Amino acid sequence: MNPRVLDIPGSLIREVASKKRASSIDLGLGEPSLKPNPAHFANAMNYIAEHGIKYTHNAGDAALREAIARHYDYPEMHNSSNVCITTGSQEAMYVALKTLLDPSRDELLVVDPSFPSYVKMAKLEGVPVRTVEMSEDDDFAFDAQRILSGLSERTRAIVICSPNNPTGRVIDRAQAEALVGALERRGGDPVWLIHDEIYREQTFVENEAYLAERYPHTIVTNSVSKSNALTGLRLGWIIAPHDFIQQAIKAHAWVTSCADTFAQQVALNVFTTLGGVNEHVSWYRAQWAGVVEALESSGLRFIKPEGSFYACVRLPDGVASLDAALQLLEDHDVLAIPGAAFGESFEGWLRLSWVAPLDRVREGISRIAKFVKEFV
Amino acid sequence: MNPRVLDIPGSLIREVASKKRASSIDLGLGEPSLKPNPAHFANAMNYIAEHGIKYTHNAGDAALREAIARHYDYPEMHNSSNVCITTGSQEAMYVALKTLLDPSRDELLVVDPSFPSYVKMAKLEGVPVRTVEMSEDDDFAFDAQRILSGLSERTRAIVICSPNNPTGRVIDRAQAEALVGALERRGGDPVWLIHDEIYREQTFVENEAYLAERYPHTIVTNSVSKSNALTGLRLGWIIAPHDFIQQAIKAHAWVTSCADTFAQQVALNVFTTLGGVNEHVSWYRAQWAGVVEALESSGLRFIKPEGSFYACVRLPDGVASLDAALQLLEDHDVLAIPGAAFGESFEGWLRLSWVAPLDRVREGISRIAKFVKEFV
Repeated sequence: MNPRVLDIPGSLIREVASKKRASSIDLGLGEPSLKPNPAHFANAMNYIAEHGIKYTHNAGDAALREAIARHYDYPEMHNSSNVCITTGSQEAMYVALKTLLDPSRDELLVVDPSFPSYVKMAKLEGVPVRTVEMSEDDDFAFDAQRILSGLSERTRAIVICSPNNPTGRVIDRAQAEALVGALERRGGDPVWLIHDEIYREQTFVENEAYLAERYPHTIVTNSVSKSNALTGLRLGWIIAPHDFIQQAIKAHAWVTSCADTFAQQVALNVFTTLGGVNEHVSWYRAQWAGVVEALESSGLRFIKPEGSFYACVRLPDGVASLDAALQLLEDHDVLAIPGAAFGESFEGWLRLSWVAPLDRVREGISRIAKFVKEFV
Repeated sequence: MNPRVLDIPGSLIREVASKKRASSIDLGLGEPSLKPNPAHFANAMNYIAEHGIKYTHNAGDAALREAIARHYDYPEMHNSSNVCITTGSQEAMYVALKTLLDPSRDELLVVDPSFPSYVKMAKLEGVPVRTVEMSEDDDFAFDAQRILSGLSERTRAIVICSPNNPTGRVIDRAQAEALVGALERRGGDPVWLIHDEIYREQTFVENEAYLAERYPHTIVTNSVSKSNALTGLRLGWIIAPHDFIQQAIKAHAWVTSCADTFAQQVALNVFTTLGGVNEHVSWYRAQWAGVVEALESSGLRFIKPEGSFYACVRLPDGVASLDAALQLLEDHDVLAIPGAAFGESFEGWLRLSWVAPLDRVREGISRIAKFVKEFV
């Protein structure tokens, strides 16, 4: 068998999550707990009743590609020919990395802490990966100078997830400007930015930067999973310059052929309904306010989330996050994800998701605060 | 960018198909023209209304995996742990090749004529490919001795699509026995068989062989696309020995995460409805009988289809299939796919699909017969 597949380790997130009990307060979940809007499904059912469910073009349904391009309206990337519809943002990222990076020559730079998939995908393709760690002293804020310090001669792309999973940090306009300016002054073959925007509709600050608005060598990946509680629909996309998308469509065509026609019709209804993409924003804002309040009164050291639906809390010095997560579940019946799952730089932290009902999240935070005090 | 992606040529099938007019008789289509059974969608809608649309396990919904394993009931592969649900049979084949083959060591053997995706996927992964051609004199019947003659020291897997696209030939039990017997006597690391069963429910002979019933090192790929007119649903699977599936699930997890939950519920209804998988079989049998009759009275040299929904006709000697397909469309308004799209061994042939209404297929065959007579 292929050693690159054999070498993929099991998921630490899943290992911990599998120990959850029925009674547990689940702060581990990486997906919305809201129900999706049934109107989007009704639209897709009407389409199927009339047309059956044929293949679409490899790149996706033309109307959906157009609607997505117009909605985000990125400079030089606002036409349907800048969009490739994929099987969730997972395939979007996989195809983007596969298309962009030549394993014999290129390296990928990943900004840590980060969701583990970027590193695992690159390894699966035989692409060398470097990571660059943001500073714990600064609550892991995106820092352009730190990111730039991670570049090597061979770096061809940098993956940035903002709002970030796990930290909840958002890259702001000043740091984006500094990063993009330095990359433009660098000369030679461009270093691409891959912006994972999966938590875009869970943004709680107003100085957030969209890299595609500032830098022409940007590839955006996203999906309707988190914005519209449609994780299981597996409907995502890549937005990128035309020449890149043409090549990405070819890779996508041989990996999965095309995205699900039904799912594409669901997404088309999201994008053609006024406010459809933002239909869950107010729920997240209210939830966020309650969670921040609970964290502030908990006595825990925490990173105030600027985006995403996570909040991270610091464990006492010297406590390993995996041990802590297992003990927290065993003794206090709360599931949280150990920081170690997101790179070495995040050891000593726990990631809490806050998509459960607010009183459950509050109770979970209260139990974690009690748990942490036991060490002192 | 990745040279393996840049090097993928455009699709000859799509190049020809793009020239189709509204008036054209379409014998090019590679998907059913039937409408899917709405009951399967109603079941999925009920599920979504109750549960929302969350991620499933990477390997797929447990009930669907179980239902598929039981339906096919292959020896040593009849448990849910032998099944991985994928985004159509395209991702099933992609993940199977990616998981099985070590690009630094292994070669893939493809039995030609064949659908071009196997070779393109292997090249995308950097896996060397050899092809072995079945004999035109024998109407491209699967021939164990010929297949075995294509093996090299490095061959780790053989892809066999039976019923075959494009030829419509089916590997029979005698040839399967000869092939499997020789592979078992060979010793050393096993050579795997990958059986693409996508046209299984379009089989019109009774001596067909299922390789997984005869050889333990068999990987099966399939989907509900052709059997149930659900091409756009993108719901397929791999059935394989447990140890292999465990590794394939990891590769699948980083390529697409998991299959669409809605699509999995549609497929679950197919597999849990009595006769659901076979609901379109009688339509194909009737259609097949009419097409064979039309071909027999046409005067054309044709390969009598044993399976699939294609029939192939011979062009006059020396006529290139791409030129012929373009001229046929231009002068007679009939779309057929040039044999050259399926490997050099199929140059000089045209592939006709017969999913259009029978009178249109008959008219198309009649025009092709007229077109061929013009050369004599």
